[in-house]
Amino acid sequence: MQFHHAGIATTDSDALASLFSTLFETRVVHEEMFGDLYVQFLDVGDGYFELLEPTDEGTVQRYLEKNGPGIHHLAMATENMPRTLQRVRDQGVELIDEEPRPGAWGHEVAFCHPASTGGILVEFVSEH
Amino acid sequence: MQFHHAGIATTDSDALASLFSTLFETRVVHEEMFGDLYVQFLDVGDGYFELLEPTDEGTVQRYLEKNGPGIHHLAMATENMPRTLQRVRDQGVELIDEEPRPGAWGHEVAFCHPASTGGILVEFVSEH
Repeated sequence: MQFHHAGIATTDSDALASLFSTLFETRVVHEEMFGDLYVQFLDVGDGYFELLEPTDEGTVQRYLEKNGPGIHHLAMATENMPRTLQRVRDQGVELIDEEPRPGAWGHEVAFCHPASTGGILVEFVSEH
Repeated sequence: MQFHHAGIATTDSDALASLFSTLFETRVVHEEMFGDLYVQFLDVGDGYFELLEPTDEGTVQRYLEKNGPGIHHLAMATENMPRTLQRVRDQGVELIDEEPRPGAWGHEVAFCHPASTGGILVEFVSEH
């Protein structure tokens, strides 16, 4: 299984995308409005930094109010989501999404509850 | 420039390494005592998750006391550290390490101040 992306909560996605594009010699390869978020994906080699800017109330808005801007989650790419989620359950890890749901960029995603994973919000992503 | 690793602050590196190894079908490829830290690198494809468990007082210990366990920093691999640090300065980004210093696993590293980078603690890593 491979790293897919790091999700970053920000109040100014365009400014951060511009700065990171310069610092990391990279560029935004996808952007969209997704639910209550403006989402931009920066190419960082074989993975992405996903910039998440709230446009309305929601989980990222609440995260920002509580924690300020920062690294929100880590996502791993899986090629077999059902098997991955079964492995998660077998380890006693609590899923936020018992069933995968549509994510940004047409991905299928499922999040684990951070209380079960060392305080880290872990996402699994299937691009298929 | 490519993603190198995500640094994770934890109070129980062995437990998290074991859980993530199973969930992500991966393994620890390097571990060492480094200064005030016990450090383990998990292979996640073309990058790593770096688990940081304090063994003594220091920045990660203070991070844990303030924030609890979580994602501590994001690191990018550079093949030209002097050029990268000049680009950082040119963008008006404050460096924590004006000069690169030895990091874990024999790497050369330099951190940027998160106040300059959208609240994200950014590290640059040279493996050479």
